[in-house]
Amino acid sequence: MKKEQTVLLAHGSGGVMMKEIIDDLFYEGYGSDILLQGDDAAKLSLDHIKPGSSLSFSTDSFVVSPISFPGADIGRLAICGTVNDVATAGATPLYLSCGFILEEGLAISELKEVIASMAKAAKEAGVKIVTGDTKVVERGKADKLFINTSGIGIIEPGRNLSGHNIKAGDKVLVSGTLGDHGIAIISCREELSFSTTITSDAAPLNHLIADVLKSCSKVKAFRDPTRGGLASTLNEFADQCGQDIKIYEEKVPVKDEVRAACDMLGYDVYQVANEGKMVCIVDAEEAEAALEAMRANPLGKDAAIIGEVCTPRKADHPLVSVVTPFGSERVLDMLVGEQLPRIC
Amino acid sequence: MKKEQTVLLAHGSGGVMMKEIIDDLFYEGYGSDILLQGDDAAKLSLDHIKPGSSLSFSTDSFVVSPISFPGADIGRLAICGTVNDVATAGATPLYLSCGFILEEGLAISELKEVIASMAKAAKEAGVKIVTGDTKVVERGKADKLFINTSGIGIIEPGRNLSGHNIKAGDKVLVSGTLGDHGIAIISCREELSFSTTITSDAAPLNHLIADVLKSCSKVKAFRDPTRGGLASTLNEFADQCGQDIKIYEEKVPVKDEVRAACDMLGYDVYQVANEGKMVCIVDAEEAEAALEAMRANPLGKDAAIIGEVCTPRKADHPLVSVVTPFGSERVLDMLVGEQLPRIC
Repeated sequence: MKKEQTVLLAHGSGGVMMKEIIDDLFYEGYGSDILLQGDDAAKLSLDHIKPGSSLSFSTDSFVVSPISFPGADIGRLAICGTVNDVATAGATPLYLSCGFILEEGLAISELKEVIASMAKAAKEAGVKIVTGDTKVVERGKADKLFINTSGIGIIEPGRNLSGHNIKAGDKVLVSGTLGDHGIAIISCREELSFSTTITSDAAPLNHLIADVLKSCSKVKAFRDPTRGGLASTLNEFADQCGQDIKIYEEKVPVKDEVRAACDMLGYDVYQVANEGKMVCIVDAEEAEAALEAMRANPLGKDAAIIGEVCTPRKADHPLVSVVTPFGSERVLDMLVGEQLPRIC
Repeated sequence: MKKEQTVLLAHGSGGVMMKEIIDDLFYEGYGSDILLQGDDAAKLSLDHIKPGSSLSFSTDSFVVSPISFPGADIGRLAICGTVNDVATAGATPLYLSCGFILEEGLAISELKEVIASMAKAAKEAGVKIVTGDTKVVERGKADKLFINTSGIGIIEPGRNLSGHNIKAGDKVLVSGTLGDHGIAIISCREELSFSTTITSDAAPLNHLIADVLKSCSKVKAFRDPTRGGLASTLNEFADQCGQDIKIYEEKVPVKDEVRAACDMLGYDVYQVANEGKMVCIVDAEEAEAALEAMRANPLGKDAAIIGEVCTPRKADHPLVSVVTPFGSERVLDMLVGEQLPRIC
């Protein structure tokens, strides 16, 4: 008898198994031409309203546990996560929806704090919450509260950012230090708690993206390295463009404390989640301009050029790799299995 | 010591307590001008793209239990619910997002069925799923699966549907029989199960709305009477426009079997949820044309004119009432407390 397949925590990891469930179930079941592009936000043509105009549309559900953690909470995450996804298309995020699933018994005071945190983050990002929904489920059928936010942004005519645009020779940038969010969450989980001063980096990056786009006309793509970390983001880009991507370990900004926590816990910092960082792929001739634009924004002060896109060594299997300070090279795979559930 | 307030199931009922939590927490916390309109879908101006153009934007999370029930399942509900909300603004729904929260251990076969059902409903409605998100939580931290869908539609220039437009003298229509969805769900709940041939009415009503708008230029507002039923919808309209609304019991279409189940269970059929019905408020002179347009659509074959909007008897407290076949009148309040949790 064949054992029935069931959903595993690893299906939500942002790694290989999540990609499988997306490819085999969602794309197979209702994959529209737009969904199949595989970008973080859908680009929706408004040609019938005005030729060349388009929208950016994205959605995210937030199930992070605990709902409050060093530096942020589920409310801030819910606003920043969707604002950032919408902005990756080079859009100006304007409007958010917000759907709550509440567990019976949640303290109203906790809900109020989350809402206040959402209002603050929305103000920082310059977006409005314009429509919402509230559901309540019985005690034990959810975990305090889950939030979905969906967001709409306007894309300027002629702008076309996507992983499909990436070419060999392009440079890879990150807007700051990696791993802060993931380590902040781990540090306050009961089963693993340890003392650290690391706080979540959750922040809206739409203004930083706009700054880069003001300085550079040859940006290929943005993507925020959330679940699955930098490793998943770069592998997704490599899949979309069919090129290899190579990064240099010594160039990747990581806080000492985050590196120490990763060593202690056996995590690969490249697979740890971020909520206030952006990966940017840009034509080599504009890499320095993009870096400068990022660094001029307080949220991008630690930005760095960390690598480049290369002609694939195996034509049918684009590879992402890290060059160590000793000059050796290791393959940087997507996360297999689940490192830490409910990170966002 | 003051007892700490907590979230109750009734806060998700679609009735008075849900209105309280929305007014006191969400509106208070981050109420934008658009959110405060209180319509089912937000109307978003695209004036900066093309003067007069606008979008309809709405969101809904679905937590129905069981996930499959006579006539439909959570997937069909998730598509139809958001399509209908977007369409209430008089928009053509085009694009949906879809966010899944999956419980570890859910059978992949069950998820596949839900996805197939979503694909089918999306095809009926003529909408595309263009962006998505998948989260997984540990066993016991959710209940099989929750789905959020958000939707975008295009509103033709000059169209302005809202409960705020309603005036005394307008007529009230419903597109068909009331209570089918709620009774279908109750009939298969373990604790209450009874035998009935009633099936859920879950259906996309965007084409029906378009039919009415093709025939009538003086439609004031549409709203689908889901949680809280017709009673909540009419009370929300009365609140928005400050007028009384009166309906006539004998004119309201209800299936005999639904009426019998309501009698047996002690439910007020006007407070039972629907997922494939639309309430329409229209200028009296176009009421017959609207009725004809509804009835010409298979999903509106049982449509009826059920009442009218009247000058308020108490200026500061608009009332909704039902006139019985004996000529007596009773106030039709919003649901207080929770009749049946997780109906959608």
